[in-house]
Amino acid sequence: MENYTVCQLQKDMRFEGFLLVRTAEKRKDSKGNDYVDLNLADRTGEINCKIWSWDSREQVPASGSAVKIRGTVQEYNGRLQLRVEKWRAVQAEDPVDMQALVPCAPRKPEEMREDIRRTVASFRSEALRKLTEAMLDMAGEELEWFPAAQRMHHAERSGLLHHTTDMLRVAEGLLQVYPWLNRDLLLAGVIIHDLGKIEEMRSDQAGNVTDYTRDGQLLGHLVRGITNLNRAADRTGVHGEPVALLEHMLLSHHGEAEFGSPRPPMFPEAEALHWIDMMDARMNTMKTAMDKTPEGAFSEKIYSLERRVYHPFYTEDAE
Amino acid sequence: MENYTVCQLQKDMRFEGFLLVRTAEKRKDSKGNDYVDLNLADRTGEINCKIWSWDSREQVPASGSAVKIRGTVQEYNGRLQLRVEKWRAVQAEDPVDMQALVPCAPRKPEEMREDIRRTVASFRSEALRKLTEAMLDMAGEELEWFPAAQRMHHAERSGLLHHTTDMLRVAEGLLQVYPWLNRDLLLAGVIIHDLGKIEEMRSDQAGNVTDYTRDGQLLGHLVRGITNLNRAADRTGVHGEPVALLEHMLLSHHGEAEFGSPRPPMFPEAEALHWIDMMDARMNTMKTAMDKTPEGAFSEKIYSLERRVYHPFYTEDAE
Amino acid sequence: MENYTVCQLQKDMRFEGFLLVRTAEKRKDSKGNDYVDLNLADRTGEINCKIWSWDSREQVPASGSAVKIRGTVQEYNGRLQLRVEKWRAVQAEDPVDMQALVPCAPRKPEEMREDIRRTVASFRSEALRKLTEAMLDMAGEELEWFPAAQRMHHAERSGLLHHTTDMLRVAEGLLQVYPWLNRDLLLAGVIIHDLGKIEEMRSDQAGNVTDYTRDGQLLGHLVRGITNLNRAADRTGVHGEPVALLEHMLLSHHGEAEFGSPRPPMFPEAEALHWIDMMDARMNTMKTAMDKTPEGAFSEKIYSLERRVYHPFYTEDAE
Amino acid sequence: MENYTVCQLQKDMRFEGFLLVRTAEKRKDSKGNDYVDLNLADRTGEINCKIWSWDSREQVPASGSAVKIRGTVQEYNGRLQLRVEKWRAVQAEDPVDMQALVPCAPRKPEEMREDIRRTVASFRSEALRKLTEAMLDMAGEELEWFPAAQRMHHAERSGLLHHTTDMLRVAEGLLQVYPWLNRDLLLAGVIIHDLGKIEEMRSDQAGNVTDYTRDGQLLGHLVRGITNLNRAADRTGVHGEPVALLEHMLLSHHGEAEFGSPRPPMFPEAEALHWIDMMDARMNTMKTAMDKTPEGAFSEKIYSLERRVYHPFYTEDAE
Amino acid sequence: MENYTVCQLQKDMRFEGFLLVRTAEKRKDSKGNDYVDLNLADRTGEINCKIWSWDSREQVPASGSAVKIRGTVQEYNGRLQLRVEKWRAVQAEDPVDMQALVPCAPRKPEEMREDIRRTVASFRSEALRKLTEAMLDMAGEELEWFPAAQRMHHAERSGLLHHTTDMLRVAEGLLQVYPWLNRDLLLAGVIIHDLGKIEEMRSDQAGNVTDYTRDGQLLGHLVRGITNLNRAADRTGVHGEPVALLEHMLLSHHGEAEFGSPRPPMFPEAEALHWIDMMDARMNTMKTAMDKTPEGAFSEKIYSLERRVYHPFYTEDAE
Amino acid sequence: MENYTVCQLQKDMRFEGFLLVRTAEKRKDSKGNDYVDLNLADRTGEINCKIWSWDSREQVPASGSAVKIRGTVQEYNGRLQLRVEKWRAVQAEDPVDMQALVPCAPRKPEEMREDIRRTVASFRSEALRKLTEAMLDMAGEELEWFPAAQRMHHAERSGLLHHTTDMLRVAEGLLQVYPWLNRDLLLAGVIIHDLGKIEEMRSDQAGNVTDYTRDGQLLGHLVRGITNLNRAADRTGVHGEPVALLEHMLLSHHGEAEFGSPRPPMFPEAEALHWIDMMDARMNTMKTAMDKTPEGAFSEKIYSLERRVYHPFYTEDAE
Repeated sequence: MENYTVCQLQKDMRFEGFLLVRTAEKRKDSKGNDYVDLNLADRTGEINCKIWSWDSREQVPASGSAVKIRGTVQEYNGRLQLRVEKWRAVQAEDPVDMQALVPCAPRKPEEMREDIRRTVASFRSEALRKLTEAMLDMAGEELEWFPAAQRMHHAERSGLLHHTTDMLRVAEGLLQVYPWLNRDLLLAGVIIHDLGKIEEMRSDQAGNVTDYTRDGQLLGHLVRGITNLNRAADRTGVHGEPVALLEHMLLSHHGEAEFGSPRPPMFPEAEALHWIDMMDARMNTMKTAMDKTPEGAFSEKIYSLERRVYHPFYTEDAE
Repeated sequence: MENYTVCQLQKDMRFEGFLLVRTAEKRKDSKGNDYVDLNLADRTGEINCKIWSWDSREQVPASGSAVKIRGTVQEYNGRLQLRVEKWRAVQAEDPVDMQALVPCAPRKPEEMREDIRRTVASFRSEALRKLTEAMLDMAGEELEWFPAAQRMHHAERSGLLHHTTDMLRVAEGLLQVYPWLNRDLLLAGVIIHDLGKIEEMRSDQAGNVTDYTRDGQLLGHLVRGITNLNRAADRTGVHGEPVALLEHMLLSHHGEAEFGSPRPPMFPEAEALHWIDMMDARMNTMKTAMDKTPEGAFSEKIYSLERRVYHPFYTEDAE
Repeated sequence: MENYTVCQLQKDMRFEGFLLVRTAEKRKDSKGNDYVDLNLADRTGEINCKIWSWDSREQVPASGSAVKIRGTVQEYNGRLQLRVEKWRAVQAEDPVDMQALVPCAPRKPEEMREDIRRTVASFRSEALRKLTEAMLDMAGEELEWFPAAQRMHHAERSGLLHHTTDMLRVAEGLLQVYPWLNRDLLLAGVIIHDLGKIEEMRSDQAGNVTDYTRDGQLLGHLVRGITNLNRAADRTGVHGEPVALLEHMLLSHHGEAEFGSPRPPMFPEAEALHWIDMMDARMNTMKTAMDKTPEGAFSEKIYSLERRVYHPFYTEDAE
Repeated sequence: MENYTVCQLQKDMRFEGFLLVRTAEKRKDSKGNDYVDLNLADRTGEINCKIWSWDSREQVPASGSAVKIRGTVQEYNGRLQLRVEKWRAVQAEDPVDMQALVPCAPRKPEEMREDIRRTVASFRSEALRKLTEAMLDMAGEELEWFPAAQRMHHAERSGLLHHTTDMLRVAEGLLQVYPWLNRDLLLAGVIIHDLGKIEEMRSDQAGNVTDYTRDGQLLGHLVRGITNLNRAADRTGVHGEPVALLEHMLLSHHGEAEFGSPRPPMFPEAEALHWIDMMDARMNTMKTAMDKTPEGAFSEKIYSLERRVYHPFYTEDAE
Repeated sequence: MENYTVCQLQKDMRFEGFLLVRTAEKRKDSKGNDYVDLNLADRTGEINCKIWSWDSREQVPASGSAVKIRGTVQEYNGRLQLRVEKWRAVQAEDPVDMQALVPCAPRKPEEMREDIRRTVASFRSEALRKLTEAMLDMAGEELEWFPAAQRMHHAERSGLLHHTTDMLRVAEGLLQVYPWLNRDLLLAGVIIHDLGKIEEMRSDQAGNVTDYTRDGQLLGHLVRGITNLNRAADRTGVHGEPVALLEHMLLSHHGEAEFGSPRPPMFPEAEALHWIDMMDARMNTMKTAMDKTPEGAFSEKIYSLERRVYHPFYTEDAE
Repeated sequence: MENYTVCQLQKDMRFEGFLLVRTAEKRKDSKGNDYVDLNLADRTGEINCKIWSWDSREQVPASGSAVKIRGTVQEYNGRLQLRVEKWRAVQAEDPVDMQALVPCAPRKPEEMREDIRRTVASFRSEALRKLTEAMLDMAGEELEWFPAAQRMHHAERSGLLHHTTDMLRVAEGLLQVYPWLNRDLLLAGVIIHDLGKIEEMRSDQAGNVTDYTRDGQLLGHLVRGITNLNRAADRTGVHGEPVALLEHMLLSHHGEAEFGSPRPPMFPEAEALHWIDMMDARMNTMKTAMDKTPEGAFSEKIYSLERRVYHPFYTEDAE
């Protein structure tokens, strides 16, 4: 049994592999028995399937989670459907390739978390290490799959880790050029700057944002990040200057009132954080736009950039 | 011994009464003994005096506090000076008229605090009552004399209480016209909306703001108010909706990003709070400007209003 | 014969009651006789009817007016139609409930006009009383049903009276808190501030705005209000300061050039008028938005507020 | 007796000629007799003089008016002073050269008024002719010397006529290129567009603006122009379209809300009026700036242009 | 054979005349022979036709060019089609009326070019004459049909010439009123100010803009105009002041940074160029809008003006 | 003879060393002989000196250049003066420490130029290498000492090299994180982006900007950079895509119209260039501001940042 993508499936094919649960709903069949109606997908398409005779005590798989599934492709009312023979939720040791199922960060989340952990461990400031660790603790497991945004940039599974670790690398580069910047403060700011997004939006495990939370809309991730930081301060017993500096970095990292920061960055590490954030978001948005545009052509107007993007002929050297 | 104001003092007069300490400094005389150099003032002027043979264990009176003082006016190097015979710090029961010493709110602070206390006591929502009381507790004694601003509006002793209690009265008026507004929520918002200013600025007991604090400049009173509110929530055990609603009211009460609120008011009580705040600040600013302008004339450009103010001939009915 | 709403009507039912004329058109039947085609409505729906054998000298009922009508419900080409047996225009003494026919202000127009009349009668300034009365005279009967706007706020029958009388009540509240404001001037400003809208828009008697007039588009209600005020001044013989003050209040009540006021408010009563107007418009808009949104949810983006509105769980006290 | 300018005067010279009254004040000498203290000027300088033994029933000459004066130059306390032998107010037939006394429009006011009169007389539209004539009547004699602005452009005696007649010539040029524009409407708009300035500012007969009036500050010349136009309409009995068109042209001639026009120009003649006004103001401002700047150099920043102005080497052809 | 417009054509009619090629494509018929599929049009409509047995060495007519064609109208699948009997490309001496085929400037291109040539010939400055001539040379033949814009104003065949020559006439009018302006510099600026558009957009010979070029999007016509001017300077050997002045006029003619000019006009001729350009564009846009709007009515909102346009009753004099 | 700084000099000391010429002027003494009046300075102060018996054929030393000088300190009219015994212009091999004389970049100009040369040599694109080299050639020797700005950032001798080489290092860091960026294009953009400043401003050899040039004011360094690039293209024979890409990078590197770029960056390398430029300018400005501010304090408002800057207690870890 080969590895097919969803768009390759045809009637009577047999399929075995990992798919993503888009929607899952328990229903009753004509005899009153429970069954589950699933829409399963990979990055190439979506297929419906029913799991009959559902044990009503069992929990329906969460949308955004992956399942391992085996079955046969059938046709029903002119549309393909998967008749399920066997299925189970994905387990930690399964060799599932999330990249094939949804847009994902280019690196594995555990690798990226390890980078962050190593960075924090290297801090010379105990206060900043404790605060950053507490913030990461409070962010919890969702950090694994959270995207950095619903649409603007790094809108992908583990996009928040992707954004954060790329920013860490840019920051390390800057620290070479501007060695007078305080390394621990800048890197701590990078790591915590967007953690408030986990309470601002709701994302399934596939990194798909479904909506904004009450607190996301009434307060936003900058302010929720600050109240979380205060909680981290209480928990770790760190108070005073380091907390105030990080509070300000959270508050000012959008740079201007117009973009949600009531204070502009007022010391160099806050300023650097703002530009690194902008730079990484812009590079990601530009790259995404350019990848969809042929060489020598202009994209449609990109909403978040307020402009069209040109894909240059980089190799036009010979002319 | 009559009651003189400072500007009425002349050589050889005797003075007994209350004066405000502008500056106070311990120095050493030519024999190495401690003495204290004071500049004392009321609203009409300032006079220097020395208190010789200072007991070095005694604390120098705080600038911004009032003292009761008796002495004789002398002339030294062509300037008047008060030779002190007796003095002491003002005590609670002293009949000192602060209004004569510095610009003050028109009502006594204890009266205004009593108004606020009564309002809070009337809340039907226990959650909002607890949160508001905790916030008032945390604000502490400084609320007594804190001004509402350094210069813009209600820049006077107890100006913060003045601003708050006038807003409460405007809010009560609105609740008559829009009875569907949630009374407790709106009044709680009014009471706590500017308490963060106590950590934003430094004021002496005369209501004179000397400068902004680190947190005032890096974060501002909106955000510090929110972290204080979270502390109040932890202390009272109130969580969830009421806290989120008050957090939003604190965050949005300046109305627009441009004026420091990253979120606009998103429910009616937040919206009402914003306008009541604007209204009261503007009425106070306009009144102050108009009081300085003769009838039929225009003021200089008022910085915070970005315009000149006209003092109408209100009685021009007869023409 | 019971009281049915339009959406309750079914074939063969008999109907007697008041309905609103949406459209009315005289036509000729196949024999060349005049008949009138009407679309009649209440707030629940619309039904077509024909009045045959129309006396061609009679005037067709105005769209936006109410009629008393009796007839039987029939079906024609699959749609319900009312076969009219008897009808007449509504008369002053008819107990018609306009609230059932179209969105209306919560109070009766005559009550609200009486409030305004009483307010004007209480003015101590004869000049302001004369000017205000002349302006109300010039506004004429249309004030009865005019809405305050086509869509933004108080878009309802008698909405202009609703807006004006609520503003009067808010103003009375403010006068308690800021007793130094000139009562007559502020209240006169409230009463006349939007009367120019009657020449800016066209509204039928149901309070439905069909379009803007030439003068509405070329000049707007602020400027037309000012030229009307000058006419009122000529008519009453009042000149000088009171006229100039009211002219300025009309001109500045939108607060900023961006919103149509070439001058910002330059004295306290003009400033207060601006904020009362804003406040009342905002409260009405917020209330309307919140009424359509379930508790704990956010509305769609409200165009005139440039934001979404949240409907709080006001009773979440117990959690 | 030669013709001297004020800066050429020296002790013991005799002077006879016309001078401008800057200030004039009646005082009492040591014996209690009235005398008048005058500061007289031409464009080159100012000299003080006293007229002794003043007949107290006589009126002191107005500041801004010209006088014919004869006297001898004396020195008093080190400053030159004119001892007056004879003087009188200037009369219509006097050959006084205002250009020598103050900055003046390059043409004589009567010539410019004649141009305007001829233009109005040529209108084919009786309505526009009547309205324009009535507006000119209401402007009265002050039009003779009124400047177009206090500082910005055409800040000179008869500057309003200068600005208006130059605009008429530009308009005539445009009518050649865009013959479909309505000539009468455009020219009527040009003539009346700034007449409201006569009630906005106070100017002496020398074209020197001393301050803004109450109405100028509370309403501005656009709105006062519109109420005057309505008065002209009542007086002439012209109503309807022509009045509405001119009202709109007055209201919109500053082009944008930000510059005082709550409505942008909405028909071609209004649009053309706006640009002709801009163009003429800008050409005058640029010319004035360039005249003060040597070839090849940049001026200081010109306030009203928000930029520096360059004086080109126009003759640099040969290089 | 009469002269029909395309919308008058009916089955079996014969047609002979000039039509515009909208699209032209070489295809193969069922036997493998080449034929050409054409869509031909005049201003009234479009008709398809096929030219069979195409000589494959011959070039397909360019879209936007005109052809002389003779044939018979047939019906195919319910749509009219022209069966071609004879055709050829239009030749210089053909009496083709482009105005009937597409929107065109009101004057012939050769006439307008002659106006420009005569203007340049009249320059007293040899430097400006040489530079202007070189720029016109570089613009080449496309100037004949280029429009001034894709949509905003003068979007018509030869619209660029139309815009330029109307501006020249306005400029000549201004030179009468402001004779101190340097005539050659102003007129040279007018002539070259938009020539860069020829490299900014792609237009067919009918004046129809299909898209923007790479350089148009990356740089715009202001900057490309400046680099062309530098090339013209190198070619003519003119350097220094005249080149710098024209460079600045090109750069600043949009007036403000917001509209694409990084520098505002800094000398009078640059300022005048900017206003003449605005004025002519606005008059054209207003005229176009008004022509589509009945008297006494308002247009839809005009995108480039950000407002509606009113068509006045200019003849309302009689009322 | 020790090495003294200027502020250490006292009467009768002997001085030998390098000083900077601030001003130099040839004058005549009482006998009609030429002498030169010099003001010489290092970073600590300034001293006047005269060189008598000047050979009138010799050239006066340029302001901003350094001289080697020996002499004795004298006092004349209460001010110190250096009586010169021997002097000469500085020669290439002199061990002059410019850093001691004026604010200088932290590295030697030749080192920084070598960095740039090595970078260009490493380009794989011949076209970009040629264009960049030609641009550097055209910039000439002034690059050695040119500052990056008159005041804003890197306002120091060789500041332009300092800014450029720091940006190169930041760019190399980014290329690690975003390896899909075109290295040659980005680095070429960095190297040439500000070369136009050499024609925009006038700087003496000490890196002190005296004023802006005609072209600097009329066109700015972005546009002059583009015309120079076109000249470089002609000279090297490179045309097409690489030139257009660099033109766009020059034009867009200020990011927004408001800051002088009529086009925003439209491909990733242009975008990256803009942010690297911002980042480096900001880091330099922030560092400069923070260096002048004690720990725990706020600076005055920094003009170019529109905010105050805070100097954190970075070491506050222990509290």
